[in-house]
Amino acid sequence: MRKKAVVLLSGGIDSSTALYIAREKGYECSSLIFDYGQRHRRELESAKRISREAGCRYRTLKIELPWKGSSLTDKKKSVPKGRALGKMKRTIPSTYVPARNAIFLSFALSYAEALGARRIFIGANSVDFSGYPDCRAPFLKAFERMAEKGTRIGAAGKKVSIEAPLLSKRKSEIIKEGRRLRVPYEYTWSCYEGKQAPCGSCDSCIIRKKGFEEAGEEDPLIKYE
Amino acid sequence: MRKKAVVLLSGGIDSSTALYIAREKGYECSSLIFDYGQRHRRELESAKRISREAGCRYRTLKIELPWKGSSLTDKKKSVPKGRALGKMKRTIPSTYVPARNAIFLSFALSYAEALGARRIFIGANSVDFSGYPDCRAPFLKAFERMAEKGTRIGAAGKKVSIEAPLLSKRKSEIIKEGRRLRVPYEYTWSCYEGKQAPCGSCDSCIIRKKGFEEAGEEDPLIKYE
Repeated sequence: MRKKAVVLLSGGIDSSTALYIAREKGYECSSLIFDYGQRHRRELESAKRISREAGCRYRTLKIELPWKGSSLTDKKKSVPKGRALGKMKRTIPSTYVPARNAIFLSFALSYAEALGARRIFIGANSVDFSGYPDCRAPFLKAFERMAEKGTRIGAAGKKVSIEAPLLSKRKSEIIKEGRRLRVPYEYTWSCYEGKQAPCGSCDSCIIRKKGFEEAGEEDPLIKYE
Repeated sequence: MRKKAVVLLSGGIDSSTALYIAREKGYECSSLIFDYGQRHRRELESAKRISREAGCRYRTLKIELPWKGSSLTDKKKSVPKGRALGKMKRTIPSTYVPARNAIFLSFALSYAEALGARRIFIGANSVDFSGYPDCRAPFLKAFERMAEKGTRIGAAGKKVSIEAPLLSKRKSEIIKEGRRLRVPYEYTWSCYEGKQAPCGSCDSCIIRKKGFEEAGEEDPLIKYE
C-alpha cells in the first residue's frame, strides 16, 4: 500500500510544486483546498485543476475567517502594489491572514488522522517572501511538536511530519524544480486580484515575474508585457 | 481599557465555567462557538445562551470536518453508552474528533490576533476524562509555543497564553467553582444526544451526573430519573 500524504494546495506556484514533489516521492496525495473568503475564486479553480492534472483527489473546505485583519480577506482594504522586493522582506505585509497556516495545518492534521496519513506537505517558503511568520521553519517545527502532543497518532508513539520542501529555495529554484516535474504552471494563479489577467504589480505578481526571469523561463500563464 | 480574551465555548459545564472565570478575572471576553456538524444543535443554543447570560459577545463559526473518524460528527456511528468511568480514562474514545482542539485553538488564535487579545481560555480538563490527547497540558504548552512562532504577536516579541483553569480539577470541583461564580448551569448542555432531556447514559451524562453528586449539588438542568 502506498504511503499517504495530505497536501495543502492554494493553486499558486509553491503549493502546486510541493504537490508534484510529494507525488514524485511516491505518496498517494490528497489535496486540501480552502475557500476562506479570498478576494477572488480564481485560485480555487486553479487548485482544483492542478489536483486533477496531478491525478490526485482533493477536498475543498469552506471556512469562515470573518474578522478584520488582512487585506486578503477584507475587500474594503487594498493589497499592496508596486513594492520593492527588499521592502517585502522586512515587514509583515497587510496580506498576512492571522494564524492562517495554523488553521490550515490543523485541518490537514485532522484529515491526515482520519486518512491514516502521517505526512503533510506545505509549499511554505521563507526566502523570497519572508514576511509571514507562519511560513518559517521554527513555526513548522513547533507545529509538528503540537501535532505529536495532541493527536491519536502521537498517543500511539508515532510522529506527524510537516514537509516543507521549498522552505529554503528561491522562487527561481522552485520554478526549475517544477519544470523538471512538469508542473502545469499555466493553470496556477498567483495574483492577489482575480481579474482576467494577472495585475503584474501586487507583491505576488512581482515575485512570480522575478522568479521566472531568474529561472530563464517564460511564464506559461501569461507574458507580462 | 480592559484586557481582552477569547473564550472557546461549547455550551457544556467546563467551557461555561471557564468563561465565568475569565470574566471574574476582569477580561473583556469574546466567545467563539463552533458549528462543526455535531450530532445535534442543542449545544450551540446552550453556548449562545450562556454567552448572553454572561454579558459577552459571541461569534458562531461554521466549519466543515467532513471526514470520518469520530462518532460525534458521524451520525452513522453511535456514541458509547453505559461505560464505567475507569474505562473512559484508559482509551481514546470514539467521540474523539481528530485534531479538534488544534483547529478550535487556531481559530481562537486568529480571532485573538485580529482583536488584539493575547489570552485564550479553554475549558479543557484532563482529570475526569483523560482520554482526549488534545485536552492535556503538554498539548496546550506545545500550542502556545506554536502560536508564539507563527503570529504577528510572537514576531513582536509578545506571547499568546492558553489559559486552561480547569485542567487539573475534578468535575465536582469545577461545579463548586461554577456555583460560586453563579454559572447558569440550567442552560448548559452535556449529553451527546440532542433530545428533549439528557440520555443519562452516554459518557458525558455519566461524568456530569457524578460531578453534581460529588459536589453535593442538584443538577439544575434536569434530574436524571
